[in-house]
Amino acid sequence: MTTTKPSKQTALRTHTCGELNASNNGQTVTLTGWVDSKRNHGGVLFINLRDLYGVTQVVAGPDSPVFKTAEEAKSEYVLRVTGSVRPRPGANANKNMPTGEIEIEAADITVLNVSQPLPFDLGEHAGVLEETRLKYRFLDLRRPLMAHNLVLRSRLSQVVRNYLYSLDFNEIETPMLTRSTPEGARDFVVPSRNAPGEFYALPQSPQQFKQVLMMSGMDRYFQLARNFRDEELRSDRQPEHTQIDLEMSFVDEQDVARVVEGLMGEIFAHIGEQISGPFPEIEFTDVMLKYGSDKPDLRYALEIKDCSSLFKDSQFKVFSGALADGGAVRAIKGEKAAAFSRGDMDKLTELVKKHGAKGLVWLRFKDGKWESPTLKFMTEPELAGLKTLLDVNEGDAVFLAADKPVIAAPCLGALRNELIARLKPAPIKKWAFLWVRHFPLLEKDAESGHWTFAHNPFTAPLPEEAHKLDTDPGNIRSCQYDLVLNGVELGSGSVRNHTRAIQEKIFALMGYDKEQVQRRFGMIVNAMDFGAPPHGGIGMGYDRLIGIICGTESIRDVIAFPKTTSGACLMSDAPSAIDEGQLKELHLKITE
Amino acid sequence: MTTTKPSKQTALRTHTCGELNASNNGQTVTLTGWVDSKRNHGGVLFINLRDLYGVTQVVAGPDSPVFKTAEEAKSEYVLRVTGSVRPRPGANANKNMPTGEIEIEAADITVLNVSQPLPFDLGEHAGVLEETRLKYRFLDLRRPLMAHNLVLRSRLSQVVRNYLYSLDFNEIETPMLTRSTPEGARDFVVPSRNAPGEFYALPQSPQQFKQVLMMSGMDRYFQLARNFRDEELRSDRQPEHTQIDLEMSFVDEQDVARVVEGLMGEIFAHIGEQISGPFPEIEFTDVMLKYGSDKPDLRYALEIKDCSSLFKDSQFKVFSGALADGGAVRAIKGEKAAAFSRGDMDKLTELVKKHGAKGLVWLRFKDGKWESPTLKFMTEPELAGLKTLLDVNEGDAVFLAADKPVIAAPCLGALRNELIARLKPAPIKKWAFLWVRHFPLLEKDAESGHWTFAHNPFTAPLPEEAHKLDTDPGNIRSCQYDLVLNGVELGSGSVRNHTRAIQEKIFALMGYDKEQVQRRFGMIVNAMDFGAPPHGGIGMGYDRLIGIICGTESIRDVIAFPKTTSGACLMSDAPSAIDEGQLKELHLKITE
Repeated sequence: MTTTKPSKQTALRTHTCGELNASNNGQTVTLTGWVDSKRNHGGVLFINLRDLYGVTQVVAGPDSPVFKTAEEAKSEYVLRVTGSVRPRPGANANKNMPTGEIEIEAADITVLNVSQPLPFDLGEHAGVLEETRLKYRFLDLRRPLMAHNLVLRSRLSQVVRNYLYSLDFNEIETPMLTRSTPEGARDFVVPSRNAPGEFYALPQSPQQFKQVLMMSGMDRYFQLARNFRDEELRSDRQPEHTQIDLEMSFVDEQDVARVVEGLMGEIFAHIGEQISGPFPEIEFTDVMLKYGSDKPDLRYALEIKDCSSLFKDSQFKVFSGALADGGAVRAIKGEKAAAFSRGDMDKLTELVKKHGAKGLVWLRFKDGKWESPTLKFMTEPELAGLKTLLDVNEGDAVFLAADKPVIAAPCLGALRNELIARLKPAPIKKWAFLWVRHFPLLEKDAESGHWTFAHNPFTAPLPEEAHKLDTDPGNIRSCQYDLVLNGVELGSGSVRNHTRAIQEKIFALMGYDKEQVQRRFGMIVNAMDFGAPPHGGIGMGYDRLIGIICGTESIRDVIAFPKTTSGACLMSDAPSAIDEGQLKELHLKITE
Repeated sequence: MTTTKPSKQTALRTHTCGELNASNNGQTVTLTGWVDSKRNHGGVLFINLRDLYGVTQVVAGPDSPVFKTAEEAKSEYVLRVTGSVRPRPGANANKNMPTGEIEIEAADITVLNVSQPLPFDLGEHAGVLEETRLKYRFLDLRRPLMAHNLVLRSRLSQVVRNYLYSLDFNEIETPMLTRSTPEGARDFVVPSRNAPGEFYALPQSPQQFKQVLMMSGMDRYFQLARNFRDEELRSDRQPEHTQIDLEMSFVDEQDVARVVEGLMGEIFAHIGEQISGPFPEIEFTDVMLKYGSDKPDLRYALEIKDCSSLFKDSQFKVFSGALADGGAVRAIKGEKAAAFSRGDMDKLTELVKKHGAKGLVWLRFKDGKWESPTLKFMTEPELAGLKTLLDVNEGDAVFLAADKPVIAAPCLGALRNELIARLKPAPIKKWAFLWVRHFPLLEKDAESGHWTFAHNPFTAPLPEEAHKLDTDPGNIRSCQYDLVLNGVELGSGSVRNHTRAIQEKIFALMGYDKEQVQRRFGMIVNAMDFGAPPHGGIGMGYDRLIGIICGTESIRDVIAFPKTTSGACLMSDAPSAIDEGQLKELHLKITE
């Protein structure tokens, strides 16, 4: 995993199990580790001794004084072995093992600890229930793959820090016991004993504190920060997660982008991948039109096309009705998707209906001819136009949705993802980074009728559109940007409001009166009174990033001690009841 | 603070306020920053523009097109200034300022933000109430001294990490939402919404998780970890604090010590101080005898001496009574303390009484003669012996306590500290590191009559004394060690129990039955069943260390956003009430 240095020598070992090779032949060494496997070959015992750094073969012949101890050592026993390094006989050398040229002829073996039989085999993986793995996490982490994930996570955190330090960022720790703020998700709260009836909140992000740090002149802040959200846990959410959080003063959007691109370049260089910026940028409205999602997976070229003008005279009511209603007709091509059965097409139709569409129009191009249940509604020029626009070739299929843009976009976005999953097109690149820019500043809240922030209440409007705060707040683009990698939203950030006047206008549009602003955001609006600098930043999900890099199905596989989807730690059995005395001290009572 | 690199250039600035010098003369530059001060000198305006990196003088003459803007700019306004760098006239050059050779002739000034008048002056310090500083923390952190503390804290954290990475430690994040465990202090708890009536606990330390990581074979772990304790806050405690936490497998006490000594060497090298190990070691029993404290400040030589044999035939009842009772007579010399008045002596007597002594015997050596209210009870040979033993010279004083060792030690320890504070002896070294070793494994709990762990329930007994667990548990020395710096306990660690048999014996002595062990320590004792390796480690207070290095009176001055002694954040107004709906979701009710 890493090159071995003499520094790993300790009172109990001279070397690790990963570092010996032919150059050590003849040396007397002491190793410590776990019995990974053991076999008896013609009366000679072979023990594979394992530690984090590798596996070394230990040999005890039938006449060896340590034979008995070796024989008694079972799987996962902890041994200390002293012996001499010798070459394995040529035929027995194992080229797949870094230590495969040598073995240790054991002169002394001490059993440092015994082990019960394990509840599951460390070699297998797929066959073990995740519940069992989480309960015995201390064993699950002995699998080399899991250990590799944690080591890589650790090393990449150092890459992140070294890079940001090289740009004069400072890592500043922000509090975990904070004030409850309404940033979307539900807070975890912590009752205060000193102030009965009052609570701290665990931070959903260091957002307000990092902005305050800019206001206090710290210039460049970062933190690998732990964030908390008491949400309904979905399959790949965790109640606590780690974020690469950064903020800079006197910057615009592009300054932040360059820092992040350099950071990704460093991270990926560490795993032998070349990434360089600037990453492609796309406007929020454009990404929704072209990909039907604000986090499209751009490893694949599939693009949604607008065919409204093709069908402007259509007699097909589905199309003409949508167009008359201010909607659009949009299409996406599935390469080789003409092979889809009627049943497949039904499933795709169900999918888009789930996203709000009334239905899905599809056409297959087979043997040089179009076929579709709705073919009769289309004219030859329309079909010809479609063929050209989407570059349809033999064996392809075309899918059309006619609806209002807000519905057509997510439907075709979901369809795009499904086509990628089913058709498995060759990726055009391995790592597809993308900046999605200029999200709307405000959205109308259906319930309250107030405007609400689309992403973050502190995001600034584009300077040239700020004047619309008074006249047309729904049509302001913001300095909000998302970083997307391979279809995953990796991070979100913005240039922030730094003047109180603009910030208060936004709060007013959101329906907050002065008292509410003070209560919810007092710290930050107060600081704005005393010379807040222009500033901006981003927060990026570190668990997600490492998950993508390690290629794991779940972020649980890159977190040492994750919770289940119901928020439990199966190993420590948290959460748990606490005693009455403690509740009383906190002035709390549990209700039904 | 740091050398300036072109990397700090942004869309809004070409340079920072700390980097320009004579080599930049003639260049057109753009700076951003805060108005630190402004003066009108014969109609010419001089603005000191400040950012994190320094201060640069900006000049606007009366005929300048920017004069009006410059005139309107008040203290702490945020400006963007473009102009040309020119030398200051010889007499005006400021050698105390890194940018003192140059000034900027402003051609353009933009006010990026305004500021209200500040509630306190950033230049002063002592005069501002800490409450005000904490309320306006965003301003307090603009003081160069505070900013320096945070930057140094950040940089030293990188020194820590780089060093530990160089030794193949991995930083592994352990959970913040954990199970409540009884490790001494009170836990902060977090109600679970998914499991009504159940709670997570915020970790008091990653102790159990880091030991589990050793059991999962991670070999070398570290973390700059946030820890939480819901204690009565004393003047220099915080509810959350940061710890350099590390753990290693297959080590003994000395392995851990060498790593820590190397770490301290790196940290102090960063601030230009040379520190090298091995640090002095002292047995717990010896440190109590010699210094009356397990964290003596060894910058000073003062040592407590046992005079019991000198006074074995004493007629003085205070001495003879104590000796007959199994106690001792111990003494400490105060150099030049003969100048203490009777009133001073009374105060010192009060001090030792507070620590349990019945009284304090003192003698002054003045003009070649002893004087003391109790002189009549002492013989010439006793006084001569005392003089030799303590090397008493003209003007010194001697203080004696006669009591049982458990009382005499803390009394004389407190007296030693007070003598250092009053006499201000010349330190014999600037940084006095010390290992205190072999604390007792168990202590008798006065209330329950059970044995209780002296430091940590997972600490191993010294191997050669483990056999006494069955026969004489009160007399077992442990593998527990404390690291002391300048009289502050900087860290505490141990070699841990790795076999379940020993660990269960210790729990049994502590009066825990199997069910209690499982409930409180289940995770770790379960893991011990499956091949736990020998391991040990330490946790060191990072806030304390930085506080010592920065020479601050309180750790609040090295924490960006600290709490008050009552646990409040005056800036964000945490903790605070939460709404009824949220309480209901948590199945909680507030009681009186």
